[in-house]
Amino acid sequence: MARMMKRRSKKTGLPPGALVYVGEKKLEKVRITIMSYDPERCEEKRTESVAECATFRDAPSVTWLNVDGIHDAGLIQELGRCFGIHSLTLEDIMTASQRPKLEDYGDYLFLVARMLHPRTDGGEERFEQVSMVIGPNFLLSFLEDAGDVFEGVRERLRGGKARIRNQGPDYLAYSLLDAVVDGYFGVLESIGDEIEKLEGEILQEPQESTVRRIHQLKREMIFLRKSVWPLREAIARLERRDSPLVKETTAVFLKDVYDHTIQVIDTVETFRDMLTGMLDTYLTSVSNRMNEVMKVLTLIATIFMPLTFIAGVYGMNFRFMPELGWRWGYWAVLGVMAAVAGTMIVYFKRKKWL
Amino acid sequence: MARMMKRRSKKTGLPPGALVYVGEKKLEKVRITIMSYDPERCEEKRTESVAECATFRDAPSVTWLNVDGIHDAGLIQELGRCFGIHSLTLEDIMTASQRPKLEDYGDYLFLVARMLHPRTDGGEERFEQVSMVIGPNFLLSFLEDAGDVFEGVRERLRGGKARIRNQGPDYLAYSLLDAVVDGYFGVLESIGDEIEKLEGEILQEPQESTVRRIHQLKREMIFLRKSVWPLREAIARLERRDSPLVKETTAVFLKDVYDHTIQVIDTVETFRDMLTGMLDTYLTSVSNRMNEVMKVLTLIATIFMPLTFIAGVYGMNFRFMPELGWRWGYWAVLGVMAAVAGTMIVYFKRKKWL
Amino acid sequence: MARMMKRRSKKTGLPPGALVYVGEKKLEKVRITIMSYDPERCEEKRTESVAECATFRDAPSVTWLNVDGIHDAGLIQELGRCFGIHSLTLEDIMTASQRPKLEDYGDYLFLVARMLHPRTDGGEERFEQVSMVIGPNFLLSFLEDAGDVFEGVRERLRGGKARIRNQGPDYLAYSLLDAVVDGYFGVLESIGDEIEKLEGEILQEPQESTVRRIHQLKREMIFLRKSVWPLREAIARLERRDSPLVKETTAVFLKDVYDHTIQVIDTVETFRDMLTGMLDTYLTSVSNRMNEVMKVLTLIATIFMPLTFIAGVYGMNFRFMPELGWRWGYWAVLGVMAAVAGTMIVYFKRKKWL
Amino acid sequence: MARMMKRRSKKTGLPPGALVYVGEKKLEKVRITIMSYDPERCEEKRTESVAECATFRDAPSVTWLNVDGIHDAGLIQELGRCFGIHSLTLEDIMTASQRPKLEDYGDYLFLVARMLHPRTDGGEERFEQVSMVIGPNFLLSFLEDAGDVFEGVRERLRGGKARIRNQGPDYLAYSLLDAVVDGYFGVLESIGDEIEKLEGEILQEPQESTVRRIHQLKREMIFLRKSVWPLREAIARLERRDSPLVKETTAVFLKDVYDHTIQVIDTVETFRDMLTGMLDTYLTSVSNRMNEVMKVLTLIATIFMPLTFIAGVYGMNFRFMPELGWRWGYWAVLGVMAAVAGTMIVYFKRKKWL
Amino acid sequence: MARMMKRRSKKTGLPPGALVYVGEKKLEKVRITIMSYDPERCEEKRTESVAECATFRDAPSVTWLNVDGIHDAGLIQELGRCFGIHSLTLEDIMTASQRPKLEDYGDYLFLVARMLHPRTDGGEERFEQVSMVIGPNFLLSFLEDAGDVFEGVRERLRGGKARIRNQGPDYLAYSLLDAVVDGYFGVLESIGDEIEKLEGEILQEPQESTVRRIHQLKREMIFLRKSVWPLREAIARLERRDSPLVKETTAVFLKDVYDHTIQVIDTVETFRDMLTGMLDTYLTSVSNRMNEVMKVLTLIATIFMPLTFIAGVYGMNFRFMPELGWRWGYWAVLGVMAAVAGTMIVYFKRKKWL
Repeated sequence: MARMMKRRSKKTGLPPGALVYVGEKKLEKVRITIMSYDPERCEEKRTESVAECATFRDAPSVTWLNVDGIHDAGLIQELGRCFGIHSLTLEDIMTASQRPKLEDYGDYLFLVARMLHPRTDGGEERFEQVSMVIGPNFLLSFLEDAGDVFEGVRERLRGGKARIRNQGPDYLAYSLLDAVVDGYFGVLESIGDEIEKLEGEILQEPQESTVRRIHQLKREMIFLRKSVWPLREAIARLERRDSPLVKETTAVFLKDVYDHTIQVIDTVETFRDMLTGMLDTYLTSVSNRMNEVMKVLTLIATIFMPLTFIAGVYGMNFRFMPELGWRWGYWAVLGVMAAVAGTMIVYFKRKKWL
Repeated sequence: MARMMKRRSKKTGLPPGALVYVGEKKLEKVRITIMSYDPERCEEKRTESVAECATFRDAPSVTWLNVDGIHDAGLIQELGRCFGIHSLTLEDIMTASQRPKLEDYGDYLFLVARMLHPRTDGGEERFEQVSMVIGPNFLLSFLEDAGDVFEGVRERLRGGKARIRNQGPDYLAYSLLDAVVDGYFGVLESIGDEIEKLEGEILQEPQESTVRRIHQLKREMIFLRKSVWPLREAIARLERRDSPLVKETTAVFLKDVYDHTIQVIDTVETFRDMLTGMLDTYLTSVSNRMNEVMKVLTLIATIFMPLTFIAGVYGMNFRFMPELGWRWGYWAVLGVMAAVAGTMIVYFKRKKWL
Repeated sequence: MARMMKRRSKKTGLPPGALVYVGEKKLEKVRITIMSYDPERCEEKRTESVAECATFRDAPSVTWLNVDGIHDAGLIQELGRCFGIHSLTLEDIMTASQRPKLEDYGDYLFLVARMLHPRTDGGEERFEQVSMVIGPNFLLSFLEDAGDVFEGVRERLRGGKARIRNQGPDYLAYSLLDAVVDGYFGVLESIGDEIEKLEGEILQEPQESTVRRIHQLKREMIFLRKSVWPLREAIARLERRDSPLVKETTAVFLKDVYDHTIQVIDTVETFRDMLTGMLDTYLTSVSNRMNEVMKVLTLIATIFMPLTFIAGVYGMNFRFMPELGWRWGYWAVLGVMAAVAGTMIVYFKRKKWL
Repeated sequence: MARMMKRRSKKTGLPPGALVYVGEKKLEKVRITIMSYDPERCEEKRTESVAECATFRDAPSVTWLNVDGIHDAGLIQELGRCFGIHSLTLEDIMTASQRPKLEDYGDYLFLVARMLHPRTDGGEERFEQVSMVIGPNFLLSFLEDAGDVFEGVRERLRGGKARIRNQGPDYLAYSLLDAVVDGYFGVLESIGDEIEKLEGEILQEPQESTVRRIHQLKREMIFLRKSVWPLREAIARLERRDSPLVKETTAVFLKDVYDHTIQVIDTVETFRDMLTGMLDTYLTSVSNRMNEVMKVLTLIATIFMPLTFIAGVYGMNFRFMPELGWRWGYWAVLGVMAAVAGTMIVYFKRKKWL
Repeated sequence: MARMMKRRSKKTGLPPGALVYVGEKKLEKVRITIMSYDPERCEEKRTESVAECATFRDAPSVTWLNVDGIHDAGLIQELGRCFGIHSLTLEDIMTASQRPKLEDYGDYLFLVARMLHPRTDGGEERFEQVSMVIGPNFLLSFLEDAGDVFEGVRERLRGGKARIRNQGPDYLAYSLLDAVVDGYFGVLESIGDEIEKLEGEILQEPQESTVRRIHQLKREMIFLRKSVWPLREAIARLERRDSPLVKETTAVFLKDVYDHTIQVIDTVETFRDMLTGMLDTYLTSVSNRMNEVMKVLTLIATIFMPLTFIAGVYGMNFRFMPELGWRWGYWAVLGVMAAVAGTMIVYFKRKKWL
């Protein structure tokens, strides 16, 4: 799971709205993809210049402008000027450690979410910030990295018959959110599989690495919950439709994504409970095995220490030890030893240690 | 307890409202049972075609259409078209991992609940999703599997004098909910019996399997609570009667089911507290027994180690060891040994170890 | 503490309002006591027939009808018909595992509380359900068992000068509630005494039975809290006077009982915190004593093992061991042994183990 | 810390408003101090008769009547009659285990608070109940015991220039509350010092008494929090000025005391967290030392047990043991022993036990 | 982390509004810095006399008066008189242990915050109180100590083009708050680095000092959370703009700082969770290693105790022990010993101890 806190300290002392990229640079070049559609047409274009973007601003069709890479301050500044976006919004877009949130700036809604990417081999799950600016006839989306999570939405836009072509930017925003939340389900399913595997291990031969992984997963669940909870709030506020930018027909769909985020939270909490339970089971079994070990040790010590002592006594070299000279002394001592051992064993049987 | 999360990932990328069955297929063939009743008559019919269903839609009597099996997308699509149901509702019906909820679509109310089936031999408790669409004169109910939980309601409908024949679909919905919640009580009672049995075991001879079962039950309680809590909310919203589809006379009955769900939650929490207490008791007794064991070991070691050492000293083969030649040397050493052992025992008695 | 959950499963499948007794039968015969009073007179009567009750219904005086025993469905049905009580209320009266609650049925208020009886020798504390139906000029109270908890209220009614004779059924309900809550104080005081005793034991010589009793009391506190919390809510709702059946002059008294229930909850929580603290103290002292024991063992082993080894070396029977022939060999070895033991002791003193 | 629950059981069965003293009797004789002041004058008087009090009731000046000792039912009854106080208020005044609360009786406000006295040598912190009746031109205050906590307020009243002389009973109530809350700060500071001392001890040489004291302080923090929390609520309600008895100019001062109570709660919670942290540190270090001890034991046993065994083998008295006759047998065996010990030590070094 | 509670006890008994400095004195001489600015001009001045301050009060430009050092009661009194500030506000300014809060005095807003200074070598993080009085055309800020945290804001004021020159005292207050919250990020980042380092240590070779530091950091997180939480509330109230002193254009910036405080809280909670997780990991690994150690001990003891016993038996000096005379007795016994040891090893292999 990516580190929660990015280096913000380089911004200390700067005035608000100062555009400084906070985060790791993941892409060399910023890529802009524009899709402009109405029920009849759907135009698609890749560009790197903002000038071109401006032409779409005043078009009657719906324009979706997706930006991959958020480290180019100049470009974002220009986009902001073109679409009339507040400098604080631009600052937030460039700061890759925002909490999910919804802000209403009157002319547009600003929505921040976190996408969850499945972990690659040997790596960790990874968060990526998704910001959206939802205007009356446009939607700007900003990603830290180039990816294909929104490819499904693009497909639906290209295929002409989908409902999405008849709807405005609010429905487009819903579709993107839906794709983001669906991403959580994918990751959660693979975590669920791992938990099931770990559960088997913990019951049979738990190893230190198993326990460590459980601790790690538990922490990831805490992180995950922290990311989805504010997203849930943001979507709830969007659905309440305080802003005229969200249409009534879209609300029912937003309610659906909202339900999905609740389900994500539910699953995350269930996983956390399961992991906690597994750790408890593990600790109980560790302490049980410890008990086992101690019993064996005590048993052995308690039986052989007295016997060794007796043997030691008759190993002493005193000149005058009458027993040593007895005819059956040796056998008598062996008998005594057997009796002592027997008594001990009976005692432990009574105490249920055997 | 059934796994909380079903495979949703196969739906990733599909548009909203896409009808794909999410869950395990439990039935070969979908079965539809129709009951149509008014105070005078009660007609009952089994069918597999939706066409027939449509005839009941516009009848003046109340129609209860129960569908066992939710994996047939075509059939559900058709039903949806016939009764005017939103595609998101249909999607939810086919997704067998919904959180209990109530949604008001204006023309109808959509209610999702989870039924709890008692565990079969060697198996686990099992959840089943129950969805209801409550319209002005019809109620559609959807079950994952065929079962006879609603048989009691059907009996009352057939017997003509019950109040239910004079009431609308809202009262029918209440009756079904009541049957669902009653099912929880049954399962909880058998769990209560098991807890009582486990409690006896834990006090007498706890075994690892006992502890494991307690951990497992504790987790089930967490799952159960998660299922009933949102059901409680849904029923509370139903009872508040924001929708004209719920009549005032039904509200008092809904309040009653609501009380029952609270009682279920109460019981579940009590069980969880009891199980936690049992684990605490167990851990205390484990650590007490550990202490016991350690004391015995220490006692034996502390008494016999010095004695063995003394015997060892007089087992040395030095040529010049005056004590060895003494007339009463042997007896003197035995006396010293007894004194050492005695001192130790007194010391331990003082320390309350004996 | 009585088991929280009674057998409800025998009611599964019955229609709502079905009168089936849920609980243990505690009395052979139901007893009805009627008191009818106004500022001038106070009439008292014992009966077993409901017919007689009816005559009081329309009297101008206040009628208190107390029923001991709730298992006689016929009698309760008749009473319900006579006083116009909803079938769901009757069902709740006969179900001895209700959560405390207040329900407003318009014509009457229905209040359920739980009385707490002190534990008898070797037994446990015991809950008893008290249901009240508060009408405009009557109050019906239902107890599971015959008892004398309400005797104080009866005394005050008989003695003519008490305020209670001038008040309506709402004040009577308050008086009964007050008696119920006072009962909690009595039980809590005796539990408080026991906790104090246990605290002494845990600090001096804790035994497994002490710890077990603490665990048990802790669980009882959880149960108690669960019973009083909803009672508090019910009284709060009563005091808010949404119903015209509660007069303003009674509200200030209800506020007083409300305060008492809060005090009960406070005490219960304090007791729970104390018990948790005692368990923590116990566990700390157990682990400390364990440490103590281990230190003694290690000390003894660490001193005597090397010594025994040295003795063992000179007990070997090699023909050529020069030391054995030395004049002062024996004393030299004893000296070495003393030096080893001394070093060990100094070492442990430094490590603060001695 | 005083026991939370006083004996209330002697009141069981009495009608509401019955004046029975609940608490320990701390004073022989009740003392009444009257101060009557307006901007010009300030009269002060000690008395024991209530008759005298009555003369002040109708005076135009503000009258502060302070009663030390709350066990004299007759006197309190008379005072109540004189100032028109409800019997439930009088009952609360005489019951020394009230939760802090504010009650609005229309003609007067009734406020209960708990004063905290610092612990005397070898004793415990002690709570004392302070009740106030705030009327239009009088304030009655009731203390369990005679003390000088309010002496500062009296001084300010005597010295003519303080703001307090120009204000009504609401400001006087504020001043008394301020003195009560200031008392908490004093006690908390001395507890803070003790915690600091305990923290040093726990890090250096923790003793069982240290741990026990920490447990005790932790519990006291829980008690303290329970006393201040409802006081905070009561002051908040007072500040909201629902009653005309509190003037607007006083509200800003009440806000100040309110802030102080929040600071008390903050400090109490911080202390609790610190104490919990200290216990955690202690437990970690106990388990670490245990580990240490076990390692030493294992080390010694693992090195000397094999050696002693070897010595034992060559101490056997078989007639035919070739090694015994060897010229360098003894030295060879010593060499083998050194090798075994060396191997063990290297092994433990590798395992980081040394 | 600085001690949460300053000595307030010296104020006990004083009337409200008494100006007594509570805190450590950190500066010798109080320093006052005045900046007076409007869009055209920006005047800056250092002074020590309050008389000079007064001239700025009625100027049309915005005046920022910063006071370093809060222990000079006379000066603060004079300032208070000059700017019309309530005596309770002045008292709060001089009490260096205020909880962050916002108070609306009508003519001005009073805001208290806590600045967090990074820890110096070997020292601890340190809090400093920042109080602000926000008037219609002035802002007074009070610091405990002289520092340069506000230097960035001053720079922006001097440089003429920044937005800040066109705004009122509310925007200035926002700028100062922003600087305060930015300070938290700096400290949190260095704590984050330390946590990462500790995490590495805990997984490889945990030492007692590591664990102690984790405990300490965990406590600091609790303190931090307690400081930021009320600051969050204060800023939220400021943003809600109940007072006309906060302009609408400033609200969006306040929302931004508000978001930052939430991010601080989020980070603090994440750190706490991480630290808790690290402690859990540590405890698990401690108990695992303990188990390891015990197993080795038990193994060695269980193998060598029986062997040593056998050797002891044949070391006895009985005259009649047939085995001793056997030709192959010695070898036979060695064989028996090998067999015993082998059996033990096989047994432990089966039990998975080896």
